[in-house]
Amino acid sequence: MKAEIISIGDELLIGQVVNTNASWMAVELNLAGINVVQISSVSDEGEHIQNALQEAETRADVVLLTGGLGPTKDDITKKVMMDYFGSKPKFHEPTYQHIKNLFSKRSYPLSEVNRLQAYLPDNCTILPNRVGTAAGMWFEKNDTIFVSMPGVPFEMKTLIWEQVIPNLKKRFKTPFIYHKTIMTTGIGESMLAEKIEKWESGLPDNIKLAYLPQPGIVRLRLSAEGFDEDKTKTQVDEQCELLKNYVPKAIFGYNDISLEETLANILKEKGLTLATAESCTGGYISHLITSIAGSSEFFMGSVVSYSNEAKMNLLSVNKNVIENYGAVSKEVVEKMAVGAREKFNTDYAISTSGIAGPDGGTEEKPVGTVWIGIATKKGVQSKLFHFGEHRGRNIRRSALMALNLLRLEVLGL
Amino acid sequence: MKAEIISIGDELLIGQVVNTNASWMAVELNLAGINVVQISSVSDEGEHIQNALQEAETRADVVLLTGGLGPTKDDITKKVMMDYFGSKPKFHEPTYQHIKNLFSKRSYPLSEVNRLQAYLPDNCTILPNRVGTAAGMWFEKNDTIFVSMPGVPFEMKTLIWEQVIPNLKKRFKTPFIYHKTIMTTGIGESMLAEKIEKWESGLPDNIKLAYLPQPGIVRLRLSAEGFDEDKTKTQVDEQCELLKNYVPKAIFGYNDISLEETLANILKEKGLTLATAESCTGGYISHLITSIAGSSEFFMGSVVSYSNEAKMNLLSVNKNVIENYGAVSKEVVEKMAVGAREKFNTDYAISTSGIAGPDGGTEEKPVGTVWIGIATKKGVQSKLFHFGEHRGRNIRRSALMALNLLRLEVLGL
Repeated sequence: MKAEIISIGDELLIGQVVNTNASWMAVELNLAGINVVQISSVSDEGEHIQNALQEAETRADVVLLTGGLGPTKDDITKKVMMDYFGSKPKFHEPTYQHIKNLFSKRSYPLSEVNRLQAYLPDNCTILPNRVGTAAGMWFEKNDTIFVSMPGVPFEMKTLIWEQVIPNLKKRFKTPFIYHKTIMTTGIGESMLAEKIEKWESGLPDNIKLAYLPQPGIVRLRLSAEGFDEDKTKTQVDEQCELLKNYVPKAIFGYNDISLEETLANILKEKGLTLATAESCTGGYISHLITSIAGSSEFFMGSVVSYSNEAKMNLLSVNKNVIENYGAVSKEVVEKMAVGAREKFNTDYAISTSGIAGPDGGTEEKPVGTVWIGIATKKGVQSKLFHFGEHRGRNIRRSALMALNLLRLEVLGL
Repeated sequence: MKAEIISIGDELLIGQVVNTNASWMAVELNLAGINVVQISSVSDEGEHIQNALQEAETRADVVLLTGGLGPTKDDITKKVMMDYFGSKPKFHEPTYQHIKNLFSKRSYPLSEVNRLQAYLPDNCTILPNRVGTAAGMWFEKNDTIFVSMPGVPFEMKTLIWEQVIPNLKKRFKTPFIYHKTIMTTGIGESMLAEKIEKWESGLPDNIKLAYLPQPGIVRLRLSAEGFDEDKTKTQVDEQCELLKNYVPKAIFGYNDISLEETLANILKEKGLTLATAESCTGGYISHLITSIAGSSEFFMGSVVSYSNEAKMNLLSVNKNVIENYGAVSKEVVEKMAVGAREKFNTDYAISTSGIAGPDGGTEEKPVGTVWIGIATKKGVQSKLFHFGEHRGRNIRRSALMALNLLRLEVLGL
């Protein structure tokens, strides 16, 4: 079964409102085994909406529309639907009673435009909207179902959950679709693709793979279709297990968990504590960690040592070391990590020192040069990286890399 | 001129990714006087993409496509475009050299799939992608322009700004639309609306106002249409000047400048230095400041004192003060600010201590309770705030408020 979503409203086309309604519906429909093949946003213009209806009718079994059902003049969806389906307006008493009730509950006066909302097409099934004034409308034409709903998110959601999805599931035999996202880090998209090529080409036909890259992270999404829920899940989980043999270090979690949350779970589980000493990341690692609720259980704090004086005064990095090797060096980043571990009295400390850019680069140490250090009770180690030219992404990638190095260290990978 | 946006990718249709790319493009195109009439999200399937191209061709002068240009197997946009426009693949040496450069800068090995990205259609104009490996492609067919871009946001944005919009403006006569955004903070949307009501109702007919609220910040966007560029600009600038009389403290800048950037400019201009001591904001203030290029000129660093021990050891907050008043108190936040100012030897220090949530609240100090301190050479002061229940927003609003209090202090407002 193929579904399409049509979102109606000028605010979407000038970018003032991001179409989160459509994304939400897409998630719900997919979970119900209903395949969304297109999402369209169109303007509040009759001709344009009609055109969208026509196009969708040729492709989809179900067309879900949102928006344009309000009581004001710019809400024209009902009129357009009635033209498209050759409907006549008919006063719908239950809807009118419902609107009257809603208004009296809120002690609002009922206006004529609200009464007009009870005039509904005579050739559709009316879906009562128990949380708003605009009823849903279910039309059928040439084997295609069209459902028009208000654009107000909670009204639309209530209709989708309580009426649209249950009715569609009664009508169509929907397959079970299972999605699982594998989170990887520390390896670029193309290198990852090369390493897992054999695994990828060995995937069963009913499992699709998508690469979803972000700076520092590549998500692999597996989507499996099947009629047996347990079997399909097992099949996907087995593929996830297989994948570990190809990239044992890269996978840090599943289903959109963040790297910082993964690390937090590991540290909390093992009862280990952490501090950071940040130069080029400027507090971003600390911010990522403290964004997680309950991080105070394992995270003791950070010194953002942006100046050399701060490195000396707060992390006890020796002045000579800075002068001899420069602030961006193996020697300094290791002293920073050791200093932070001592000052905060933690099991681990991670440190960064680099040139985030756009200025400050030299031939020897260009923008993007970053040292990352890790201090443990056994000692200290560090690694050199070359990221790109963009300040924000250098900060982000340095932070993710530092979190990942610590993850690998703690897990002994 | 009519434009359409086609976003390609299954992740949009299963709702995993919200289509913020399309909204961003819609805003930018509208600002450039280009009208967006439809936004469509379609799956990674050849037939479906072709169908979307055909439909858009009948309606639009310009069709902008994003997504599906990566190096992996599921990225099929290039192949589909070549079929649609009857292209042959041609090795594009400049693109290959650019990809090689990108990889060698990052010390990544170049793989075969990346080399294949340099094979591009022989009958399109290639738009070099200076920040990524997938080039943009500009096709023309039956009076319609088609531009295919990668879906990675910053790559797409760079292409739109630097090449697509300038080329479209050369080609089409677009009306002159002048937009100016007034940035305000420290005052909520409805209170702001009340205070500026008279100003708003006195705006000339050709100037439209939109309120664009975010947590902690309300942007006011003025959009003026006119035939005389200079006159229209002057008219808008005059209204901006007038507005200052209504909310003299709230306006911190124009045109999407961030609060941290405004503060950075003020501090740099006055030759003043800053440090922070962060508890509930967990390094986020430091991160905001260090996200700005050149911040090392005035920002010396931060202590993220998440534990009480860190407050004592690194900021010299007396143990008795913490025990007597609690970590979230006027006394502690002021000692933190004074401690940070001394340790980093700066003109100013700001500090935060609060309960970000979701746990840790008490009847007396519920989640959202935040103290913010400022230490100057004249002494120290602090203020108590009550934000909401959401951890992320509490962190963000606390950080913005701290930056704003410092801005008002430094400017003597």
